[in-house]
Formats: sequence, C-alpha cells, structure tokens
Amino acid sequence: MLKLKEIQTLLEGEFSEIKFPISPEKLYQPIKYAVNNGGKRIRPALTLLAAELFTDEYKKALPQAIGLELFHNFTLLHDDIMDNAEVRRNQPTVHKKWNENIAILSGDAMLIEAYKYISNADPSLMPETLKVFNQTAIEVCEGQQYDMDFESRMDVSEKEYLQMIKLKTAVLLAASLKIGAIVGGADALSQKILYDFGIKIGLGFQLKDDFLDTFGNPEVFGKNIGGDIVSNKKTFLLIKALETSNENKKRELQQLLAEPNIDKKIEGIKNIYIDLGVDEAATNMMGEYYTQATNMLNELSVENQKKEELYNLAKKLIQRDK
Amino acid sequence: MLKLKEIQTLLEGEFSEIKFPISPEKLYQPIKYAVNNGGKRIRPALTLLAAELFTDEYKKALPQAIGLELFHNFTLLHDDIMDNAEVRRNQPTVHKKWNENIAILSGDAMLIEAYKYISNADPSLMPETLKVFNQTAIEVCEGQQYDMDFESRMDVSEKEYLQMIKLKTAVLLAASLKIGAIVGGADALSQKILYDFGIKIGLGFQLKDDFLDTFGNPEVFGKNIGGDIVSNKKTFLLIKALETSNENKKRELQQLLAEPNIDKKIEGIKNIYIDLGVDEAATNMMGEYYTQATNMLNELSVENQKKEELYNLAKKLIQRDK
Repeated sequence: MLKLKEIQTLLEGEFSEIKFPISPEKLYQPIKYAVNNGGKRIRPALTLLAAELFTDEYKKALPQAIGLELFHNFTLLHDDIMDNAEVRRNQPTVHKKWNENIAILSGDAMLIEAYKYISNADPSLMPETLKVFNQTAIEVCEGQQYDMDFESRMDVSEKEYLQMIKLKTAVLLAASLKIGAIVGGADALSQKILYDFGIKIGLGFQLKDDFLDTFGNPEVFGKNIGGDIVSNKKTFLLIKALETSNENKKRELQQLLAEPNIDKKIEGIKNIYIDLGVDEAATNMMGEYYTQATNMLNELSVENQKKEELYNLAKKLIQRDK
Repeated sequence: MLKLKEIQTLLEGEFSEIKFPISPEKLYQPIKYAVNNGGKRIRPALTLLAAELFTDEYKKALPQAIGLELFHNFTLLHDDIMDNAEVRRNQPTVHKKWNENIAILSGDAMLIEAYKYISNADPSLMPETLKVFNQTAIEVCEGQQYDMDFESRMDVSEKEYLQMIKLKTAVLLAASLKIGAIVGGADALSQKILYDFGIKIGLGFQLKDDFLDTFGNPEVFGKNIGGDIVSNKKTFLLIKALETSNENKKRELQQLLAEPNIDKKIEGIKNIYIDLGVDEAATNMMGEYYTQATNMLNELSVENQKKEELYNLAKKLIQRDK
C-alpha cells in the first residue's frame, strides 16, 4: 500500500517535470512558479489514494491528480490578488513578483491547463469526471464569493459559515477523492462515500486552519498568529463568539474589533474566545467531523488495510499542529 | 438554409434564457450582465452554420455554441480589467460597475460555465471537442500576453503582429467553426478546411478592426476614432509605418507618438499612414485574406448553396464599416 510520503515524492517529480512552453514567458513563468511552490499536494494525493483503493494501476489517475492540484494553485493565485496577499509560503505572491495583469492572465491559463489534465481521461470516464469537476470548480468560486461577502457583514451565522467553507475548501478535497475513485473504477456508492468523507475532512481541515491561526504555536505553525483576528475575518471562532456572548461581552468584543493596537487586539480577543469556550467548541466540532469521517470510511467496502493511509491522512489534516 | 439573422435571434433567445443561480449574487449578476451585452454572437453563429453544413440537427451544437460565446465574453471581461477599460458597448465594464475582485472571480466562473457547455456533448465527441477547445483557450491567453508584451516594445515585426492576432482573435473563430463541424459529423478534412477558413477570416476581421479604429467613419463606427493612435497601440498600421518609413518620416512619427495634444496626434499620424500608403497596404492585405478564405470555402465538399451564408459572413466581417 502506498504511503503518503511516497505519493508526495512521486507528485513532486511529476510537477517538476511538466513542460510548459517557453513563450510567452510572462504567461508561463508565473505558472511554473506557482506550481512548484512547495505545497503539500493534499488534493492530488487524495486522488491517487482513492484510485489505489480500487486498482493497482492508480497511476491512471495521475492526469486528474495533476489537474486538481493545478486548479487548487489557480484558486490560490487569483485569491491572493483579491486578498492583496503579499506572501505565500514565504515567497512573494505572483501579483507582487510580477504584476496584477500577469497574475490574472496566468491564473486563467492555469485553469485551462487544469482542464487539459482533467479531461485527459479514458473517453468512457470523461463525462462523469468532467461533471464532478465542473460542478466542484463553480462551487469553489461560489465559496470564494461568499467569503468576500462575509467581510462586510457582522451577522454571519454558523450555518452560513459552514456552508461557505464547505464550498471554498471541502468540495475540492471531496472531488479529488471522487475523481480518483471514478478513474480507479469504483462503483457509485463507493464514490459517494469517499466524496462525503472528503467533505467531512475538508470541514475539519478548515476549522483547524481557523483554530491554528489564533491558537497555534508560533514556533511550529510557521505563520504569524492572529492574522485572522487582526483582519476581523469571520472565522468560526469569531462567529461563535458573537453568537454566544452576552450583552457585556459582546460590547467588549466589538470594542476590541476596532482596537488599533494589534497586540492588545489579539490578546484581548483570544481571551474572550477562551472565556466563552469557543476554542473548546471548535475542538469539539473538529472531533465530531473527524469521527463522522472515519465512520464513513468504515462503511467503504474495501479491505481495511487498504484504507489505512486515508485514515492517517484524515487524522493528520484535522489533528495537525501546522 | 439558415440565415445569420435567424441564428442571431435564436441565440439571443438562448442567452436570455440561461438560468444562472441567484446566489451568490455578486458572482452571477456580473455574468448575466456580461452575457447579455448585445454582442453580435459571431462565434456561436459560426458554430451553428458549420454544424448545419453537415446535419439538419444543427441544434445539437447549441451547447458548444453557447460555451464558445461564454468563453469569448469571459476573455472580454478579464481583458477589460487588464486594459483598464471603462466602457464596453456603451455600458460600464464589469470591474467599473462592480469592482475588480468581482470581475476577476465572475470571469473565472464564466470560464468554468463555458466548459460546462462545451463538455455537454455526445460522449463520443467529447475528446475531440475538448481537445480543440483546450488548445484554443490557451492560445487565446497566449495572444493576450503577446499583446500586452507589445505595449512596451517598439520593434514588433509584422510577422509577430500577425501571429499575435492569430492567437488572440483568429483561433477562436476557427475553433468555433471546427467544433460546429465536429458536432455536425464532418470528416477530418472538412474540419480542417473550416478551421483554416476561420483563421483567414479572423485575421481579416482583426485587420479591419485596426483599420476602422483609425479610418472608420465616426458616425457609422460607433466608437471614438483614433483610440489606438492615442494609446500607441502596436497595430498593423503603426508597425507597417515604422517598418516602411525613411529616417525623416520615422523621426516625425516618433515625435507624434509622444505628442500630448490628442487631436494633433491623431491627425498627424493618420496623415503619415496615408503618405506611406499603409492604409492601402492594410486594405490589400484584408482583400488577400478574404480571397484566401473564399478559396478555402470553395474546396469544401458541401453543396454551394449550403455555404452561402458563410461566404456572406466572411464578406461581412472583412468588408464591414462598423
């Protein structure tokens, strides 16, 4: 059975070997740069792990695995423009290293390249594969739009938040698994179980992201702690805090959201989160998603030994420290 | 035999009936707005006309026709951001009416919607259709990048210019015809002839665009005359003028390119074009592409009567006044 590490090594080799045209340089250099940015390759790994549950020829799913990672990198590239992010993985973002126009256009080209890989499937599998991918791709755009909409709203409910992260993050993990399953020859029920499993780990993964941004260990996490707090991002923690606080606490929280001193703001809001127990609520919720995910995987009619690495990965994504 | 007008009416009906989701509003409203912008629907018309050469069931090609127009509108939407254009067809551009982030994201979603329609083909035709579309879509991005590269260059050759407009404009007209032919059941040779015909009318069409921007009748053309001159755009006219002028004329031209008085600049450069005969050179070249296009269509093994509307359209695209 393949280990995640082996798959990541295999994928790194594949990504470094993609031959993009040389010219026009300003279209293809940013794509190369964005693709070889040292990501963890979670989505293509899920595709290959899912394919391997049903076939030894899991490498048949490599084009789709690569296409899904290209798509993910395309979304990061365009999201970074929209968020005006300067740095990604300790390197300047594409629109900062080049410029915004180049980032828009090379992102577009990356999305098209993603489709090239995704549609490089056995013709008998193309309709199903593309149907899943088309639907997922549009949902990811919807998720990003909701996320932007939430910036100017103070009344986002927990339900709306969960729907947003489902669209923005979870459906792509789910589709990566489902497409791997399709190419691997899985039956419809197994495809569905893996998709649903992907939704659960995706939700847990994103909650963990929110959690670590506030409660992570700065030495391990690798990013600055408190970025979400500084930018008043509508995370699970903030939404839950606004929902569960009484009049006094809410007033205190509102004041801190407007606090110009960053350190004071982070410290103050973090303390309110702890007072209200929203850190615990988030941890419980992640645990709940993790349990639901593993329960789903239990139901999959595949030998347990084969599923081991997916269990590991679910654990890793939700219980990670960085 | 279908007339272009009937096809345009049919297409308008189709576009106005597309049901995009209601929410998130800021994702789908701009798409609706961009799609129903009163374009001439040239590309989807070419798809249906090409399909009808080979089958009475030309409506089978409607999804692809719609997808190609969605793709075209996506390119306009993102190009308008890159060019910082304020108006398109007398209406504010999407990034001006909403904002840049919304324009980036709704453009992305439009590209994905285009793929949804394109891939809605008989499974036996999907591989071929997607291969043509994927290749074309990436070429259009390449053309746009070359066009942007040319902005900061004064040494663009005629050959480079023609290659750029081939990528940016002609290949999409060509692919629209070819995909219509594929869905219509055409043999490989007919597909190729129609593709090549599309390249020729595309080149002629773009040259005409350049020509009208400088020499069009302001009352008929509908856009301001001289926009390309004001922005020092590397059109066929400017490139040819720089190539064919002697030392003195070139100096005069260079001075005018830096002239701050817009009216003086337009008038002066226009006069140089006429002195050097680049207006005539452009007209001759359009005539040449038109002849090559009709010669190609002559070779297509389809009754002449059926081809009539394509002959008309070629003439219209290259000999239009607006």
